[in-house]
Amino acid sequence: MLRIDLLSVVPEMLHSPLDHSIIRNARDKQLAEIEVHNIRDYSTHKHRKVDDYPFGGGAGMVLTAQPVFDCTEALKAVRSYDEIIFMTPDAPVFTQQDANRLSLCSNLIILCGHYKGIDQRIRDEIITKEYSIGDFVLSGGELPALVVTDAIVRLLPGVLGDAESALTDSFMDGLLDAPHYTRPAEFRGIPIPEVLRSGDHKRVQQWRQQQMEDKTKRLRPDLYNQFLNNQ
Amino acid sequence: MLRIDLLSVVPEMLHSPLDHSIIRNARDKQLAEIEVHNIRDYSTHKHRKVDDYPFGGGAGMVLTAQPVFDCTEALKAVRSYDEIIFMTPDAPVFTQQDANRLSLCSNLIILCGHYKGIDQRIRDEIITKEYSIGDFVLSGGELPALVVTDAIVRLLPGVLGDAESALTDSFMDGLLDAPHYTRPAEFRGIPIPEVLRSGDHKRVQQWRQQQMEDKTKRLRPDLYNQFLNNQ
Repeated sequence: MLRIDLLSVVPEMLHSPLDHSIIRNARDKQLAEIEVHNIRDYSTHKHRKVDDYPFGGGAGMVLTAQPVFDCTEALKAVRSYDEIIFMTPDAPVFTQQDANRLSLCSNLIILCGHYKGIDQRIRDEIITKEYSIGDFVLSGGELPALVVTDAIVRLLPGVLGDAESALTDSFMDGLLDAPHYTRPAEFRGIPIPEVLRSGDHKRVQQWRQQQMEDKTKRLRPDLYNQFLNNQ
Repeated sequence: MLRIDLLSVVPEMLHSPLDHSIIRNARDKQLAEIEVHNIRDYSTHKHRKVDDYPFGGGAGMVLTAQPVFDCTEALKAVRSYDEIIFMTPDAPVFTQQDANRLSLCSNLIILCGHYKGIDQRIRDEIITKEYSIGDFVLSGGELPALVVTDAIVRLLPGVLGDAESALTDSFMDGLLDAPHYTRPAEFRGIPIPEVLRSGDHKRVQQWRQQQMEDKTKRLRPDLYNQFLNNQ
């Protein structure tokens, strides 16, 4: 079973996504164990303070080292962690390959940054892996940590109802997904493509492959070139 | 005031992130209005069904057109929307520039996909903008919609306590952020860089700029090349 420990200064932000949908299914089926920790609980400051002004000046507050060192040490005393991950925009971008790899781990810690940043000594001494989820800035690492958790957990065997479903996802073969249609065959005068009603499995497959290649070429030439190079 | 309508089949997933942190601040200060809609409430099916099997076969269920058409039409009858956004991995990748642009809008709809995909007729007829948050697959569009909401809302004037803070973020000038340090100056024997205690504002700025360039060059050569081209 995969265990993920999420460390946050606003743990209450994490509850509803963890308690619903795929992540909830995985927890209910005991395929994943996800624990949320309030970094503030580890602060030795008398008012449980976890942030302070940046050395050298500048805007925003910085997460202090002490509570994060103490929290991760308490967790590491109990079990051995494969990775201690920090979510931050100034890091390599998380991809499906990372999700695939992390889904094979046993124990992960994911530290959510908040405030302007975290004390660099946490990153230098504790963190083993840093990921960004993209080239945009958020108010904290909580949503990115949930994104990574969801991407990993849905790959665990038994989590998705239909085992085949994850295999036909976007990116699994380096191409974007083909268009989907469901009933009715005509909605407000708009029919579905004829080929999808043909019952000719081979033609459907060819059409989907062509759609995937066309869409990837148009929207993501970078992925399309990788796809061509892998052929 | 910016209004965002979030459309989901698992609206309960959205609550805790919307009710805490920056997004909550923005709502409390009446700088943003965020409404969550359950797509299921618009289904005309007797059991409020919103998904069905894909035409042409294959794994996974597809979100049907009817409830989404009816929900967006009900919303559009009340106000005019700048964009109707669909979060999906097979789309252009969302960036800080998109967040900046969307933060100037008045009314946005964000449709969260779920299941294997959504009926393509929704995308062709209703959606005005599609975004992916990255090259990975999630169980639904709820977390990506929250990511986009957070990225936009924190840019609204008055939302961040410290107005300068957003301007010094990663990506604002095309570079990754510099390391941060806060008290104590020495923690477990590890001192902060001497320059940050020098009180010499110009040296601090030079050190930070150098750190930003070095880190970007090392971790994100793609961004670094863009940065050099913009000089």
